[in-house]
Amino acid sequence: MKIYELAPSPSARRVSIFLAEMGIEVERVPVDIRSGENLTEAFQKKSANHLIPVLEMDDGTTICESIAICRYFDETYPSENSLFGHSPIEKAKIEMWQRIVELKGLFVAMQAFRNLTGIYQDRETCVEAWGDVSRERLVAFLPELDEQLSKSSYIAGEKFSVADITAYVMCNFMKNLNLDVDESFPHLQSWLQNVSARPSVAL
Amino acid sequence: MKIYELAPSPSARRVSIFLAEMGIEVERVPVDIRSGENLTEAFQKKSANHLIPVLEMDDGTTICESIAICRYFDETYPSENSLFGHSPIEKAKIEMWQRIVELKGLFVAMQAFRNLTGIYQDRETCVEAWGDVSRERLVAFLPELDEQLSKSSYIAGEKFSVADITAYVMCNFMKNLNLDVDESFPHLQSWLQNVSARPSVAL
Repeated sequence: MKIYELAPSPSARRVSIFLAEMGIEVERVPVDIRSGENLTEAFQKKSANHLIPVLEMDDGTTICESIAICRYFDETYPSENSLFGHSPIEKAKIEMWQRIVELKGLFVAMQAFRNLTGIYQDRETCVEAWGDVSRERLVAFLPELDEQLSKSSYIAGEKFSVADITAYVMCNFMKNLNLDVDESFPHLQSWLQNVSARPSVAL
Repeated sequence: MKIYELAPSPSARRVSIFLAEMGIEVERVPVDIRSGENLTEAFQKKSANHLIPVLEMDDGTTICESIAICRYFDETYPSENSLFGHSPIEKAKIEMWQRIVELKGLFVAMQAFRNLTGIYQDRETCVEAWGDVSRERLVAFLPELDEQLSKSSYIAGEKFSVADITAYVMCNFMKNLNLDVDESFPHLQSWLQNVSARPSVAL
């Protein structure tokens, strides 16, 4: 079993932190997406979305999409500390917050970055004005996240979950947009200090 | 228990088809998002993402995000025909395809529609050029979906799943962008005819 990835990319980081939280080690194969290694026919056969990370089983079966890879490990090694939750309502709350942070936060930040910098303009049309709008939307989302963290210790409740991993990766990625979690977001700031101290994140 | 929704919207349709597949009936409360009923403080307290649909339990707990609502019912009423799958690998494949269709299809179509028509310009900045790019990306995704459906009867394998619901809602929504699933996508077209005949969809 191996994972194809570009280790520092936000999507690969999500899977790496998740696996470190579960104490699972998987062989890694680096893929240079900046130079377009993910655009080759050989790679695209492995990855249904043509992106990294991709989990490849020993029988050749492949799974892409970070959250699908995380869920595979969560289902394969059931744990009392599942990062996807236990009861139906806990699972629903974690899924809800994981998706909110992803759709209003991390993916918006990534759209801002790609459209403002044109980093992948060899393979996609960039629209600078959309980069600006995306950055504004991300800035507008931060107070919402701060408010949620005024009500609970972690994003989706009193336990660390996959929603916190997405939010941590988002906060880290914001540096690329000259945005920082400062004292205007006291709850988010304190949560970020707390999460940054986890061994899974420090790796 | 009730669901707040705008029934014909893509997100509400996803939950409605899912519940019809499971044979579950839930009281519905209409919310007029076009006039901004979802922007009131009362509604935003119910919905963490400020959007519909929202599931409200009898104790007042609320869950938004369509897929989180669907998962709540899937976990509450376990079934041999779970639309999220059974084994770890089946669950991972369904989650992978659900996300691919959502992120490269449905959400891209929705971004194209909102930015090209300016339907919600009372509450968001629209960028027409991003609408054009989004429409082009959606058009580029259709052959990928057609290819996948040349390999299996349904999007994520041989069984109907939540990934098919997302794809069906996407195909329906494409009409708003003057796009149609025509004979240039024979596998997608035949799958669409098959899925359109399901009682859950005809409702």
